[in-house]
Amino acid sequence: MTSSKVLIVGGGPAGLEAARSVAEIGGEAILIEKRERLGGTPDRESYAKLTHHWRDASEAMAELAAAVTSNANVEVKYQAEVKSIDGEAGNFMVQVEAGGVAETLEVGAVIVATGFQHFDPGRATQYYNYYSFPDVITLTDLEKMLKEHNVVRPSNGQAPQKVAFIQCVGSRDRQIGNEYCSKVCCGIASKQAIEIKQQLPDAKVFIFYIDMRMYGYWENEIYWPAQEKYKVNYVKGVVSEVLPKNGQLLMRGEDTTMSRPMEVTMDLIILSVGMEPSAGTRAIAQLLGIQQNKYGFIEAGGAGGLDPVATSRAGIFVAGAAAGPADLDDSISRAGLAAARAVAAVRKAVLA
Amino acid sequence: MTSSKVLIVGGGPAGLEAARSVAEIGGEAILIEKRERLGGTPDRESYAKLTHHWRDASEAMAELAAAVTSNANVEVKYQAEVKSIDGEAGNFMVQVEAGGVAETLEVGAVIVATGFQHFDPGRATQYYNYYSFPDVITLTDLEKMLKEHNVVRPSNGQAPQKVAFIQCVGSRDRQIGNEYCSKVCCGIASKQAIEIKQQLPDAKVFIFYIDMRMYGYWENEIYWPAQEKYKVNYVKGVVSEVLPKNGQLLMRGEDTTMSRPMEVTMDLIILSVGMEPSAGTRAIAQLLGIQQNKYGFIEAGGAGGLDPVATSRAGIFVAGAAAGPADLDDSISRAGLAAARAVAAVRKAVLA
Repeated sequence: MTSSKVLIVGGGPAGLEAARSVAEIGGEAILIEKRERLGGTPDRESYAKLTHHWRDASEAMAELAAAVTSNANVEVKYQAEVKSIDGEAGNFMVQVEAGGVAETLEVGAVIVATGFQHFDPGRATQYYNYYSFPDVITLTDLEKMLKEHNVVRPSNGQAPQKVAFIQCVGSRDRQIGNEYCSKVCCGIASKQAIEIKQQLPDAKVFIFYIDMRMYGYWENEIYWPAQEKYKVNYVKGVVSEVLPKNGQLLMRGEDTTMSRPMEVTMDLIILSVGMEPSAGTRAIAQLLGIQQNKYGFIEAGGAGGLDPVATSRAGIFVAGAAAGPADLDDSISRAGLAAARAVAAVRKAVLA
Repeated sequence: MTSSKVLIVGGGPAGLEAARSVAEIGGEAILIEKRERLGGTPDRESYAKLTHHWRDASEAMAELAAAVTSNANVEVKYQAEVKSIDGEAGNFMVQVEAGGVAETLEVGAVIVATGFQHFDPGRATQYYNYYSFPDVITLTDLEKMLKEHNVVRPSNGQAPQKVAFIQCVGSRDRQIGNEYCSKVCCGIASKQAIEIKQQLPDAKVFIFYIDMRMYGYWENEIYWPAQEKYKVNYVKGVVSEVLPKNGQLLMRGEDTTMSRPMEVTMDLIILSVGMEPSAGTRAIAQLLGIQQNKYGFIEAGGAGGLDPVATSRAGIFVAGAAAGPADLDDSISRAGLAAARAVAAVRKAVLA
């Protein structure tokens, strides 16, 4: 017996868009979210502002969520997780537990949108001393400060005068096994640098990078203004260690453009931590029996490489950062494609 | 009187995916293409291989086209162009001319997938002497050579021993008005460098770049093997001019990592030309009355910035490189979202 329902796992931007699109094109969607709230990582991690248009992240996530909760063709289950799956495209039997209650869902297709987690900078990049020095923080720690308009040195509660971003922490780093680029951190750091300058106009802000990787909106609306209007200092360089010095932080490394050793003091250092597959992404890949790449992200692209949302199992699709580093536009776009593929799969099964 | 049909303008990867998705989710698609063939730029420009999986470009485009031509819910019109449009979402009257015959189409929504054109390196970057020196070619010229397994110096028909790619020709260049990044050229140059090494194992290949911008597939499957397996030489540097010297080409500029002037001779120089809006994209934006950004690409994102395929006019959507530089994954993903949005728009109009 075929089912025309589509199960979407994960209530972040990709899952919300997938559910909305499935419902708007005539399908029925069931969206399950493990937390008691929608909005995914931007909500959970209290992001301040999102591109485009520097929108308040809570407001933007609420807009995506409203398109889902206001649609009668989407059923949302909170505190819910997939426990097992059986069957095939057009006819999956999925055991879920929602709010402590087990139930079986009959669905025709599944969209995995279980997202990413931020790299833990204490795990393998000890030389930055994230867990030792309070004034070494991450991009996500800074988002919370920016949201509260309270960018301070955690060690003393004072506004920092010299701030440095260190790029590629947990990315492009073969020694720790993450040689991939996390794609969004150059843009996020540049966005945050602008926000720091808006909140603390007298602060000096530096970004230490390998390559500045941005394009489209990120380049035109973020990178250029960061350099030209906000006078953010971009330094091509490698930071090898962070040490304490007279109440400040000493950064040692190499300025690769100037080809010389670099030793500078900072008040606040932000580690631009990369994206890794979330625990939920790793778990559901195992559970659904779909291939992961060597970094643990869900392998996408299909046999011919022309289907960015296809997984290795027919009828199961992937959208958003569960398949690898992605920005909001990427996540929303692929969610739309995944919705189209999922509805196509159930239509094909129903018509067969 | 509302129409449930969706008009797709352009038969490249984005248009093909949009038409396929519209049809597969239950809509009716009309695809118009100005040439007599489908496949867009990869077909017209005789691309050799496409990522992912180094697929033969002709074969990959044929696969995308077959998904459209084999679907009874897509009507394809060749040698066809939009002449005018009237009406609103759910009820557009579109005048088209197909094969010299004028007709009026009633459609509920429109997806613009009119693509890009390669930057003309003679127009504003004369110092590379594209139109003077036969051995200065572009990425697209090289694709044709690679397809024919005939990578030679056009001046004498001999295999080059030293080959250089110059990145960001027509991109990230404020002087010519294109300060945006074309996003794909770093990956394409790296892919082509590998192909040159496969066809001419003894050639030395250099890539002169500002920042190497790659991620995902491009980084993991192209950039790392290019460096490590194929020994492509990446040089962070700026090339300021190309001159003739004893039958070779003299490149002058600055090696910015070494902070020193650079003067090297090459046998073949490839200009990594960027992406600009195609003439068709500029024309249709005017004709449909949809906003363009300052570079002429179609402005996308919607009022709230959360809809990567929305244009400034309700019921008209954009996918692929008509909205800005995009790789194949981007184009296909956004086409899927555009299909979902278009079908949602016509459903809403029909149900209203």
